[in-house]
Amino acid sequence: MFKKIGIMAKQQTQNAKNTQNVAAAVNLIINYLASLNVQVIVEQETLNVITNCQLPVISRNELSKHCDLLIVVGGDGRLLSASRSAAKQNLPVVGVNLGTLGFLADIRLENISQIGEILNNKYHEEQRFLLETQVKNQETIIAQDVAFNDIVMTAIKAGRMIEFALHIDDNLVCSYRADGLIISTPTGSTAHALSGGGPILHPSLKALAIVPMFSHNLSSRPIVINDSSVLKLTPAKHNKEAIKIICDGQNEIIISEGSEVIIKKAAEKLRLIHPIDYNYFESLRMKLGWER
Amino acid sequence: MFKKIGIMAKQQTQNAKNTQNVAAAVNLIINYLASLNVQVIVEQETLNVITNCQLPVISRNELSKHCDLLIVVGGDGRLLSASRSAAKQNLPVVGVNLGTLGFLADIRLENISQIGEILNNKYHEEQRFLLETQVKNQETIIAQDVAFNDIVMTAIKAGRMIEFALHIDDNLVCSYRADGLIISTPTGSTAHALSGGGPILHPSLKALAIVPMFSHNLSSRPIVINDSSVLKLTPAKHNKEAIKIICDGQNEIIISEGSEVIIKKAAEKLRLIHPIDYNYFESLRMKLGWER
Amino acid sequence: MFKKIGIMAKQQTQNAKNTQNVAAAVNLIINYLASLNVQVIVEQETLNVITNCQLPVISRNELSKHCDLLIVVGGDGRLLSASRSAAKQNLPVVGVNLGTLGFLADIRLENISQIGEILNNKYHEEQRFLLETQVKNQETIIAQDVAFNDIVMTAIKAGRMIEFALHIDDNLVCSYRADGLIISTPTGSTAHALSGGGPILHPSLKALAIVPMFSHNLSSRPIVINDSSVLKLTPAKHNKEAIKIICDGQNEIIISEGSEVIIKKAAEKLRLIHPIDYNYFESLRMKLGWER
Amino acid sequence: MFKKIGIMAKQQTQNAKNTQNVAAAVNLIINYLASLNVQVIVEQETLNVITNCQLPVISRNELSKHCDLLIVVGGDGRLLSASRSAAKQNLPVVGVNLGTLGFLADIRLENISQIGEILNNKYHEEQRFLLETQVKNQETIIAQDVAFNDIVMTAIKAGRMIEFALHIDDNLVCSYRADGLIISTPTGSTAHALSGGGPILHPSLKALAIVPMFSHNLSSRPIVINDSSVLKLTPAKHNKEAIKIICDGQNEIIISEGSEVIIKKAAEKLRLIHPIDYNYFESLRMKLGWER
Repeated sequence: MFKKIGIMAKQQTQNAKNTQNVAAAVNLIINYLASLNVQVIVEQETLNVITNCQLPVISRNELSKHCDLLIVVGGDGRLLSASRSAAKQNLPVVGVNLGTLGFLADIRLENISQIGEILNNKYHEEQRFLLETQVKNQETIIAQDVAFNDIVMTAIKAGRMIEFALHIDDNLVCSYRADGLIISTPTGSTAHALSGGGPILHPSLKALAIVPMFSHNLSSRPIVINDSSVLKLTPAKHNKEAIKIICDGQNEIIISEGSEVIIKKAAEKLRLIHPIDYNYFESLRMKLGWER
Repeated sequence: MFKKIGIMAKQQTQNAKNTQNVAAAVNLIINYLASLNVQVIVEQETLNVITNCQLPVISRNELSKHCDLLIVVGGDGRLLSASRSAAKQNLPVVGVNLGTLGFLADIRLENISQIGEILNNKYHEEQRFLLETQVKNQETIIAQDVAFNDIVMTAIKAGRMIEFALHIDDNLVCSYRADGLIISTPTGSTAHALSGGGPILHPSLKALAIVPMFSHNLSSRPIVINDSSVLKLTPAKHNKEAIKIICDGQNEIIISEGSEVIIKKAAEKLRLIHPIDYNYFESLRMKLGWER
Repeated sequence: MFKKIGIMAKQQTQNAKNTQNVAAAVNLIINYLASLNVQVIVEQETLNVITNCQLPVISRNELSKHCDLLIVVGGDGRLLSASRSAAKQNLPVVGVNLGTLGFLADIRLENISQIGEILNNKYHEEQRFLLETQVKNQETIIAQDVAFNDIVMTAIKAGRMIEFALHIDDNLVCSYRADGLIISTPTGSTAHALSGGGPILHPSLKALAIVPMFSHNLSSRPIVINDSSVLKLTPAKHNKEAIKIICDGQNEIIISEGSEVIIKKAAEKLRLIHPIDYNYFESLRMKLGWER
Repeated sequence: MFKKIGIMAKQQTQNAKNTQNVAAAVNLIINYLASLNVQVIVEQETLNVITNCQLPVISRNELSKHCDLLIVVGGDGRLLSASRSAAKQNLPVVGVNLGTLGFLADIRLENISQIGEILNNKYHEEQRFLLETQVKNQETIIAQDVAFNDIVMTAIKAGRMIEFALHIDDNLVCSYRADGLIISTPTGSTAHALSGGGPILHPSLKALAIVPMFSHNLSSRPIVINDSSVLKLTPAKHNKEAIKIICDGQNEIIISEGSEVIIKKAAEKLRLIHPIDYNYFESLRMKLGWER
């Protein structure tokens, strides 16, 4: 049973009205939790959203010391960026959605009683894995990062073709001349990779999707492999364009010449909490406009 | 160590010259095996190809009683149809390819010495799973079959739209208005499903691909699910077109009104033998014309 | 100015309730037209839908002798089949849609006053061209037909691969091993061809789209050519499967061995009448769920 | 009859060996032309490739004053960049290909006698149109450019989503949330647009293809419109990402906030000269690996 609840939201820097909405939602949830007699702890940055907070405040990286469930208010994007530290701390996360229905944040504010049910031990828990990537130059690790949705290799500049080789478990798959390559988790398979012709991977699948972006070779196709595989992306020496990788569409790492990129499953997993009546295919159907 | 070797080939009914080529190949392999001092048994129908056979002959369904490895001569299509009974008997299979390089039958006649290496215990063994399907009407099983590549539901007549619902593990995925649906194993993912926009599934992946054929809903996409899932296809009551399923592009079962189709992983697996230097990505690269 | 109005609808043989709805719609339109003081003529088969008709009745092929505008009640499918004879008679057609919004039949019953505006000379007229096809065997024409949307070549049985060559203006394009090929007009580009990955062709474009169905060659792509081109489809001699062509998804012609199929623009055109505020991109956006 | 021949090639700055090859090819062609008793004029920048040139030299923008045919040595990319000034001067262009077969530069060095045939009036002339684009801010033209293949709108940074509306002839088509949009001529339809799922447009087609890049709306599709249409791309006000357009994958123009992009057919056309036996579908078949 979840007894100590962390709450996290983010300031909408560009939009005062949105920030007010988020603040109202956070306060509503805090009041609701108070009525349930559970401890509530507020994540530090969330103070930029709500004011006059009387509750204990804790930094994002210490949440798991003081709470056993994290409520993220905002939507899939918000939950995505919270997930990295939550996964590291093995802290279960549930998302409250303020806008359009999300794939991850699936509690709407009007169904706030679903949070009560979760605290009452009625919930569905999923494990979602993350990818970790290392940029290496002659065995030295230059940079590393993790991703929940996808890791993308492209030119720094949009619309430019790059050349690179893909190895899986040290076997050459092929050399690509393309705008780039998307390596996606099942979670990310309904995000950027889907727009690029990638398949939908069921969240329980222990697999990765590899989706070429505008490959010059017209017989290039998405490939799905076991999540235990180790991928290596090696930019060709003669690339005219500077190359980067992007983790979850947010964090960019520039790949210096002679470097290679290793991608594999991260050790940590995200514990994602859903309402008890969660149904993956139903949310897929609603999000994508499929017929009942 | 394989000691007793079965050999199987098929008459090319429509082409005498091809049959001669197959016969020459079978005789070459038999002579080669004789030089290795192993027992050779000939599958019964193969007598339509070779004549004057002095070797013991056995029916297809009893092969495993008398041999511990089956050599199939002909190509992927040939190996495909041999695989069903081989899988039932848990009999390892290796394919000798007479035409273009296959995904499954990957020994060329000019590399016949690779068979010697396999008999010498130098080989790579893979397990490939099969699908089984049942057509049910009110809990009565009307028909059943297995497939190694794929099971396709379509109208009997080409070019006609049908309506049907897909459930996975009793959860509705969606209702399709489409030319049909392909359910593919990893093995079949490089066959018909690939032509229809499906992803390539690595053979080791415990997964199925669901590929809609000409779906009216433009947001329909291929879905990849765990191979432990049970699929149910339910034709809509108001379909104007008679509906069938096709197993491996060969065996057709007509679906009577009010019936539904259950598809799941079969109990049996095919033990597929490759030369020791087998490399899946290399054969993919060569078959699909990808750059090194 | 349109003065003599023909009206056409079709019996919904399988559904008495639908037939009642169609009858109600036809009677509503007839009464509306009566209030406008124009002559109304009823197409013969429409008598299967409405009863007690006091109006003059005329056969489908003689409509243009007695009317200068044809109102088709039912939807795109209905309008499609009416269009062939209307085009031959150079008779303008307007469609009243009873179900979901159509691409062609774009007057909803609740906007019946748009018919009044059309009669009042406020309308938008488009010309849509048809395809004609001839099946030839050694210069003898075996069969011929016309199509408004598309002509499809496939095996008679669904799910079977066929081989055939495509020539455009006597130049070989390529040989296909595929489930089939769709030749589509701009009108048909939002129908079956769109489900198969074909592009949307603006209705004013003097062009055809050629869309391969499940081509084995992964670099096959849709091709758009001038509508003045003459296409020739030649089945390969060694096809195992019997082959047919389908015009507008309805009329099938079986292609006997040694025959070839010629496809070109038909001499006749359909004069399609829209409300004055007709906007192609708006109906595209609404039908396909694109964002404003 | 072509009497005065210009010749143009480009220094391969990054590769001395390639530059030698280009120089050898240029000298071979010059000697061949000398043997045919035609005047040869060398484009100025070409002097960076060949040395000891005794021939008259002229700047790129004045070529048409002194020659009536331009030979471009190098490949499709080379011909592409030469085409802009050639089109402006209405100067016919023929391409000599040093590498893999091109779509545009279709004379191989070993078939140099085809140049003699062209000079002998045996050739096939095609007209290929260009696009022109204007970036406007409140009716002021901020920047303009032309493109032979395509104009692409994307974020400046790769992998970022942008929002923008597309109007055609002042009618809203839709609003996109996507990585970008490609507007392609028939010539460009076998380049970047093809990698992104666009159709192949026959070079004689008076049409443009609009190909969305990674559109979030899964029912987005390529659209083909008349080349007389005027397109307007309007970035949404709330884009987080800075936006650019790219002409022919080379020239970039940054779109300042509040600007819009107008794209239409340019007034000038490229006169592209092919050998007399030029066959578009044959080069398509060879380049894309289609079966005969």
